[in-house]
Amino acid sequence: MRRKFKVAVLGATGMVGVRFISLLVGHPWFKLVAAAASERSKGQRLREAVRWLPPQGLPEEILEFEVKSLSPKELEAADVVFSALPSDVAGRVEEEFARAGFAVFSNASSHRMDKDVPVLNPEVNADHAFLVEEQRKRRRWSGFIVTNPNCTAAVLTLSLKPILDGFGIRRVLVSTMQALSGAGYPGVPSLDIVDNIIPFIKGEEEKVERETLKMMGSPSKPASFKISASCHRVSTIDGHLEAVFVELGRKAEPSEVAEAMEVFQGEPQKLGLPTAPKPPIVVKGENDRPQPRLDRMAGGGMAVVVGRMRKDPGLNGVKYVVLGHNTIRGAAGCSILNAELLAAKRLIS
Amino acid sequence: MRRKFKVAVLGATGMVGVRFISLLVGHPWFKLVAAAASERSKGQRLREAVRWLPPQGLPEEILEFEVKSLSPKELEAADVVFSALPSDVAGRVEEEFARAGFAVFSNASSHRMDKDVPVLNPEVNADHAFLVEEQRKRRRWSGFIVTNPNCTAAVLTLSLKPILDGFGIRRVLVSTMQALSGAGYPGVPSLDIVDNIIPFIKGEEEKVERETLKMMGSPSKPASFKISASCHRVSTIDGHLEAVFVELGRKAEPSEVAEAMEVFQGEPQKLGLPTAPKPPIVVKGENDRPQPRLDRMAGGGMAVVVGRMRKDPGLNGVKYVVLGHNTIRGAAGCSILNAELLAAKRLIS
Amino acid sequence: MRRKFKVAVLGATGMVGVRFISLLVGHPWFKLVAAAASERSKGQRLREAVRWLPPQGLPEEILEFEVKSLSPKELEAADVVFSALPSDVAGRVEEEFARAGFAVFSNASSHRMDKDVPVLNPEVNADHAFLVEEQRKRRRWSGFIVTNPNCTAAVLTLSLKPILDGFGIRRVLVSTMQALSGAGYPGVPSLDIVDNIIPFIKGEEEKVERETLKMMGSPSKPASFKISASCHRVSTIDGHLEAVFVELGRKAEPSEVAEAMEVFQGEPQKLGLPTAPKPPIVVKGENDRPQPRLDRMAGGGMAVVVGRMRKDPGLNGVKYVVLGHNTIRGAAGCSILNAELLAAKRLIS
Amino acid sequence: MRRKFKVAVLGATGMVGVRFISLLVGHPWFKLVAAAASERSKGQRLREAVRWLPPQGLPEEILEFEVKSLSPKELEAADVVFSALPSDVAGRVEEEFARAGFAVFSNASSHRMDKDVPVLNPEVNADHAFLVEEQRKRRRWSGFIVTNPNCTAAVLTLSLKPILDGFGIRRVLVSTMQALSGAGYPGVPSLDIVDNIIPFIKGEEEKVERETLKMMGSPSKPASFKISASCHRVSTIDGHLEAVFVELGRKAEPSEVAEAMEVFQGEPQKLGLPTAPKPPIVVKGENDRPQPRLDRMAGGGMAVVVGRMRKDPGLNGVKYVVLGHNTIRGAAGCSILNAELLAAKRLIS
Repeated sequence: MRRKFKVAVLGATGMVGVRFISLLVGHPWFKLVAAAASERSKGQRLREAVRWLPPQGLPEEILEFEVKSLSPKELEAADVVFSALPSDVAGRVEEEFARAGFAVFSNASSHRMDKDVPVLNPEVNADHAFLVEEQRKRRRWSGFIVTNPNCTAAVLTLSLKPILDGFGIRRVLVSTMQALSGAGYPGVPSLDIVDNIIPFIKGEEEKVERETLKMMGSPSKPASFKISASCHRVSTIDGHLEAVFVELGRKAEPSEVAEAMEVFQGEPQKLGLPTAPKPPIVVKGENDRPQPRLDRMAGGGMAVVVGRMRKDPGLNGVKYVVLGHNTIRGAAGCSILNAELLAAKRLIS
Repeated sequence: MRRKFKVAVLGATGMVGVRFISLLVGHPWFKLVAAAASERSKGQRLREAVRWLPPQGLPEEILEFEVKSLSPKELEAADVVFSALPSDVAGRVEEEFARAGFAVFSNASSHRMDKDVPVLNPEVNADHAFLVEEQRKRRRWSGFIVTNPNCTAAVLTLSLKPILDGFGIRRVLVSTMQALSGAGYPGVPSLDIVDNIIPFIKGEEEKVERETLKMMGSPSKPASFKISASCHRVSTIDGHLEAVFVELGRKAEPSEVAEAMEVFQGEPQKLGLPTAPKPPIVVKGENDRPQPRLDRMAGGGMAVVVGRMRKDPGLNGVKYVVLGHNTIRGAAGCSILNAELLAAKRLIS
Repeated sequence: MRRKFKVAVLGATGMVGVRFISLLVGHPWFKLVAAAASERSKGQRLREAVRWLPPQGLPEEILEFEVKSLSPKELEAADVVFSALPSDVAGRVEEEFARAGFAVFSNASSHRMDKDVPVLNPEVNADHAFLVEEQRKRRRWSGFIVTNPNCTAAVLTLSLKPILDGFGIRRVLVSTMQALSGAGYPGVPSLDIVDNIIPFIKGEEEKVERETLKMMGSPSKPASFKISASCHRVSTIDGHLEAVFVELGRKAEPSEVAEAMEVFQGEPQKLGLPTAPKPPIVVKGENDRPQPRLDRMAGGGMAVVVGRMRKDPGLNGVKYVVLGHNTIRGAAGCSILNAELLAAKRLIS
Repeated sequence: MRRKFKVAVLGATGMVGVRFISLLVGHPWFKLVAAAASERSKGQRLREAVRWLPPQGLPEEILEFEVKSLSPKELEAADVVFSALPSDVAGRVEEEFARAGFAVFSNASSHRMDKDVPVLNPEVNADHAFLVEEQRKRRRWSGFIVTNPNCTAAVLTLSLKPILDGFGIRRVLVSTMQALSGAGYPGVPSLDIVDNIIPFIKGEEEKVERETLKMMGSPSKPASFKISASCHRVSTIDGHLEAVFVELGRKAEPSEVAEAMEVFQGEPQKLGLPTAPKPPIVVKGENDRPQPRLDRMAGGGMAVVVGRMRKDPGLNGVKYVVLGHNTIRGAAGCSILNAELLAAKRLIS
């Protein structure tokens, strides 16, 4: 193996930023060399600036990092940046980094719907990765931007991929029960969620619908099946649970669909990428699974867990429940897998 | 007004039984004269026998009731019985009471799918009430059985009724987030639900699908639209929240559908039944409502609250969220409203 | 009865401010004429400016109030103001209002430890009310400031009062389990409290210790018993639960202490003040009470509920558990009771 | 190292039983050879019989174990048994096993207060281990029984040990916030604990008081300091949090007490026992720690975490908060550490 890529995290002090860092600790291909955040945190130790830490903490030497500002100049030591920036600043900052030659892997939604920016969930649409070449050419950038999808769409599309490949999809309806960490930190006030549900997450349904079609289409054309999402916040820490109803392209038994999921291997599994879960889809036979607390860490938080595959009398298709870790598969972990994919395809160097 | 009907509660010691009692306290038409339960509780004071009490408690004189056994003989003082029995005993016991001349209003599922037993949600299918006459004739009973629907179906069908009337329905998909009280007491272990969701409720989806069609059809024939449910248990105390996707019989804007709900009046409202909520459907304009803790007591727990009415790109129809109190509108309150309806129609005497 | 006093609420848009308003709706002695808040909200309708609403909402005509600024000029229509201001602004603003002739009843901690400002929990130290006369004289104000204690101290001292009167107190240790609403809205992030406890509430222990001694002493000298508090935040919506260990001034059986609590009547009960709970202390015999969800609304949220009275082998005294509603008895309700007390004593006019 | 001891778990299907098994997987000194439970489960695969599984599951080959009955005959293959039996059966069954020559390490309370049975928390009273020799002689058993303390006492005494050694103890008051797993599975109904606290745990306070004194005294005489506990159940999954107030034997600053805790090493640390946490007491400087979700897995769940060490004005001593994992340090893990201690001291063979 060649030398490790040097990487930095933008927006390193929020919940997804910290998740990026914790997944990069000990990574075989990537070495974290810097952490950057908004001017408010600049110059502080990461230790003081982080708003949230995982239970297991972070290594001392990383907590001692001085927080850099969001400028390509300051992060010259890195080749690759992972962006956990909020959408309102991500748009501009990420472009600056891409122009300056960085490979930018972003969790922000700002550029996801740009025609020449791939929304990449590697088991689903690894073939979209090559869009970065078109992007570079068109924009005359030496770097590029690759985005990962919205957390809910990441989980959904991974579960839909073997269905699309094996049976075709005419229609998808999805109703979600999403975890608190999806709103970041401090995020949802406790008074709003104890003994309660919030049946609304701003912009979420549009993202799920749009990004799913973009990912499941060809690089140049979104998929044409119908899709509708209803998104709700419930009182779980991590792990988005989604009830999915699918009208298939051709008749199939639920057991056939479950089997297609079980044997499914994506490009990351075939390439043996370090963060690729094996298998990417865990199919449960017990009728009361998946459950967020029990199943969200499947495959290190990178697998999705499917259960309750059954006939759907509403669409004459199948219905099932799928769970995935929203800040790992649905955010930082997906972005890191994207970077691994582009490294394996020699699209970053 | 004539004298009050004398009523008794069967299965009085469980959560729904106690809910029946608390709703009957001070009722203008019904006077609680006895409480009955399984042999295990027989002879105890209700005070000792109840497994659960509402925060506001119950009147002292009722807590002093001696628990009777489940025999028509022992409850001769009553004309009407409300049954909160578990399904495994309800079937046989309720038949005995009906044969002995009692008007039986049951929350149990045992008889719901019997052809001559109405599943009654009075704003939805008051016209099914007359089935009891056929029932009496066929079974040669002097009494009869009327059931209320499953809690989830009660909430769903009330919200669907103005849609069916105004626009027609081709297809309904519903994904639920159901409260803990739906499982009774002790019900769901706390270790299963803190920071968790259980994506399965035994028998629930079948009940929702079957009972909705029965209620929304004619007395003799179920409705023919397609329906599919996915049911999940979340960590709320009371109030089932349901995400509903509807394919309409004819094109309509979400605002038209919302208006039809807002102006909707059912038979109980027209008859001015004591437990009838005014309005039966509360439509919220705020985009983050309904919420279980804030909205479950609308109309004293008898109204359903609808929010987020919007276009559904999946079915080319509408999608919305509806909330109802599962042990009031979804159980004891619905059964009491049923009894009021039959009293107003002089079907009990 | 004379005409109603005209009252305004300062800091009307936060959780305690709204609680003040909802308790003033329909009050027999006080008529709400205005709501004021910081410059940020000024000029908005209260409807838009409130950060939190109770499940039952607020009357439409009050939601239409225009939010005034925190200036005595703007609130001339009122005689009395209730302050739910945050401590950092309360100090200065409340003085301005008192100087301008208003009777100020404050939930803020800013002035609680001023020698001539009573910290008033009316069942405990109604005799401290006359401090306002000294205060007016010394400060040459036409109005005055009366504070209510910290929420935890309000609940604790009410339960201790009959013990102090009947048996004397040498030492009190208290360990609390405090509700989320105590931190206001948005307050505690949900990610910090699901499946968790925060064993720290800034400044709380000092307030509990200091204010308890001030209230339970004479108007001029704090009580001299020893006191220590350990304060913790748990995942309940409303209701502070406190485990209390007491070393008595003379030997007594737990049953004697419980009886003293049960028969206790404070000045508000004797005067028949409108907000006075009857009884002020509810003593429970069941060994698993009080519980926050079941008992917090005792006496309309103004009573405290005591349970598990038993021997304490650590201090050779008694130990018990007490619960009180933190934003009613512990904040807005207590302040309103204070105003009623001063009105009854003709200290406001 | 000699051959591994062969061990079996009694009461293997409940929550603590499964915890024993999961801690024994891969243990360097002990090899699990059998799992036993009540007649109800006998003959089933462990897979079917367990009432609860940890998120990470159990190895397949162990899930395939056939559940044995609770008879020494059936468990002849084992030398050592770990008992997670409920107290009502533990008394008799454990005696049978000890009589039949097994070294019995029990989490049940049945024998804890027997004079010749050690209640062992190895960092606290390793010197009590030798009681088993007296026990064998007196009872003419070839085996013996060693118990671990009640979960709350295990956490408390480990934190008190360096205080007792360094400063002496006159008085301890402790108020607990205990996790749901302490009540086993199904245990606490969810309806009792969402937005709630149960201020009572049957028998718990007596156990904490009695066992603490037994452990912290000499093998033949309990300690003579005063102690009082108030125990409460809150809505956390794992980890008992305890607020502790201590009157010291001699004056000392909180910082001295904290330091004594930080440097503390018990016998298990000195002997390098495989399950011994290093350090056994983690002292936190942040003022909002320890928190159950963040800190319960310290030292693999075997360490206790202390925070908020400060002066206690109530007892003129110190107060602090301590957290420990109730089913690891407080149950199965402690019992396994006990077995390691006796193995290291060659008291089992």
